[in-house]
Amino acid sequence: MNDIIGRVADKWTLLILEALDENGVVRFKELSRLIPGISQKMLTQTLRQMECDGLVKRTVYAEVPPRVEYELTPLGFSLGEAFCGVWTWAEKHYAEIEAARKKFARRQRG
Amino acid sequence: MNDIIGRVADKWTLLILEALDENGVVRFKELSRLIPGISQKMLTQTLRQMECDGLVKRTVYAEVPPRVEYELTPLGFSLGEAFCGVWTWAEKHYAEIEAARKKFARRQRG
Repeated sequence: MNDIIGRVADKWTLLILEALDENGVVRFKELSRLIPGISQKMLTQTLRQMECDGLVKRTVYAEVPPRVEYELTPLGFSLGEAFCGVWTWAEKHYAEIEAARKKFARRQRG
Repeated sequence: MNDIIGRVADKWTLLILEALDENGVVRFKELSRLIPGISQKMLTQTLRQMECDGLVKRTVYAEVPPRVEYELTPLGFSLGEAFCGVWTWAEKHYAEIEAARKKFARRQRG
């Protein structure tokens, strides 16, 4: 179980989930644009992992150049729903966390 | 917001949350035992980050040697609750993910 949690409880997995949840069928370049800060390598690696875990469906069209599209599977959508509570928590407690960080920084400065 | 999600959507944060949620006030060595596979460095770093974010309270007792204890703050407990949905999801879909992984591995072997 911990290994599954370790795989899904991951920043880039979460941001890809959200981007696909909101945009449906998306190409690699578009996804890369939708997730600021993600490297090509990380996007490739995380998408591959999500495909392996059955969260993402990858479709390759035999065109020149080949067209590759990604979308969430039903399992992927269900994980997105499970994470809703975490997104809501982050929105609700954003100010509290920022205040805690400032307090911690002041304490470090002594 | 993404930076907060990035900080909390993390395997070790989740496992520390669960260990403290289940065991209350815990010392560093005990925590290290409760979370198989975590390095001393990762445990120190993640606990410090969680303390910075206001999720964990660290208490140092001026004894020889000094005694250091960790416990969740109310904010920490609320994050644990927000993640309940993810744990439940992982339990519910464990077999489905294992099957997807096997299918993916077969496809890779071609």
